[in-house]
Amino acid sequence: MPIELKKVLGAKLPPMDFSWDQDRLMLYALGAGVGIDADPTTPGVLQYTYEDENLKALPTFGVVPSFAALMNLMSVDGLSFNPMMLLHGEQYLEILARPIPTSATVRSEGSIKAIYDKGKGALLVIEVTTTTTDGAPLFRNEYGIFLRGEGGFGGEQGPAAGHLPPDRAPDAVVETPTVAHQALLYRLSGDKNPLHADPSFAALGGFDRPILHGLCTFANVARAAIQAFADNDPTRFRSIRVRFVRPVMPGETIVTEMWDMGGGEIVLRAKTKPNDTVVISNAQVVLDA
Amino acid sequence: MPIELKKVLGAKLPPMDFSWDQDRLMLYALGAGVGIDADPTTPGVLQYTYEDENLKALPTFGVVPSFAALMNLMSVDGLSFNPMMLLHGEQYLEILARPIPTSATVRSEGSIKAIYDKGKGALLVIEVTTTTTDGAPLFRNEYGIFLRGEGGFGGEQGPAAGHLPPDRAPDAVVETPTVAHQALLYRLSGDKNPLHADPSFAALGGFDRPILHGLCTFANVARAAIQAFADNDPTRFRSIRVRFVRPVMPGETIVTEMWDMGGGEIVLRAKTKPNDTVVISNAQVVLDA
Repeated sequence: MPIELKKVLGAKLPPMDFSWDQDRLMLYALGAGVGIDADPTTPGVLQYTYEDENLKALPTFGVVPSFAALMNLMSVDGLSFNPMMLLHGEQYLEILARPIPTSATVRSEGSIKAIYDKGKGALLVIEVTTTTTDGAPLFRNEYGIFLRGEGGFGGEQGPAAGHLPPDRAPDAVVETPTVAHQALLYRLSGDKNPLHADPSFAALGGFDRPILHGLCTFANVARAAIQAFADNDPTRFRSIRVRFVRPVMPGETIVTEMWDMGGGEIVLRAKTKPNDTVVISNAQVVLDA
Repeated sequence: MPIELKKVLGAKLPPMDFSWDQDRLMLYALGAGVGIDADPTTPGVLQYTYEDENLKALPTFGVVPSFAALMNLMSVDGLSFNPMMLLHGEQYLEILARPIPTSATVRSEGSIKAIYDKGKGALLVIEVTTTTTDGAPLFRNEYGIFLRGEGGFGGEQGPAAGHLPPDRAPDAVVETPTVAHQALLYRLSGDKNPLHADPSFAALGGFDRPILHGLCTFANVARAAIQAFADNDPTRFRSIRVRFVRPVMPGETIVTEMWDMGGGEIVLRAKTKPNDTVVISNAQVVLDA
């Protein structure tokens, strides 16, 4: 099914509204595995999971309100594809106003910013801006959606992925375990794709069993950087960019390797234990320096 | 602070309304630890945690709508006590209509059914009946609330606890692990007592760290019985009665020992690993025979 570039580029997705409260923030953090292996007194646990005056959003919560805006992707004129061939390839999130409020009502508006021809597939870049009811921009997301089999349409190849680790041992390594029901819990934050719960859908996608959400792994990587380089202060978190290489299986431990590049820039790579498989590459977190 | 028996006995608590949906049911089950250690394809996991046509309530969800009705206990005329001296001592739950709907709006009405003088304290028995909007009774709960230091008022001692295990090895033993953030997750189902999250409140209660909710342990015990004696079919579950002996610490594994007494009656006792401490005693589950 060819992509009609002229129609699709710049196409807008219908705006979607979303509200959250403290419970929703805490559910998100617990779904991302906060506190699984740690006494609640460990720094960085209760600030994400307990509704006292110190409650803060795990910054990657910023993807959640924008997620619904993607649901209408298949309604875009000139864009037809088999949804089973869709892969979430890349994600960028920027926090535009800090601290993230612990409750809010927001609107997310998306548009197709770029389409790259990657040969084996097409990479759609969808930008979603999330704004509070008073019009202040809060989050900017870029979803990199890979459509397998839709390449070769003669488009630009797009920029090469950057953020490779320097040739030295990581400056910090943080391990964050997950448990077997992690995907079942994470999906309550909004991404109900049955690929993450139903074995028959997982099999259709080519997996032995339901896989963890890439955006759950994403949350773990961000949290690792905040722990290692921001004294567990999530309000210092400015942006994150990742490439999803392979899915994590619920129950695996995510091992995030980090390199401090100076000026608040952290380059990251994530593997899983015990298989030592790279699951996230070409990743960068920017913190307040 | 003396209890004015004549005023308190039979006193009604203000009715409380509550609604749930599928997400709420799934959150409850995950908070109770369903699927922590098991591949989602394990029988009994997805039926509680995935919103397809097979979704069923873990029957102990029946305590959740009634819980809010207890919040007004301190407003009862003639009943004054220090809330820090309150312990949840016993719980009975009966499912009056099956299957439990996966979404509903209900009303819970409570009254003080009995007050027993246990010497070291008073045992308040609070009955809460939960009814659907069309007036059909759905759940009956009895909370046994122990008020330390409020005994010796000259009341009846009340019945002795029954449901002791027979003098033989258990007919079935089921282990259900918890993880360190279990109480943080369980509390999103409604019991936000900071004793289960905040180390300073836990210390005030005499605990080294926040303890797991007794009703979370309760859910694990019920689930163990359904797994061992009802082929994982929660619609066969009729009632449960337990005495809480000691709290479980998040991260401990709950080991439920069960004896089949015939006619659908199961006697239970729960311990924790690795300490082999009894946490629930005098417990009975009744299943459809």
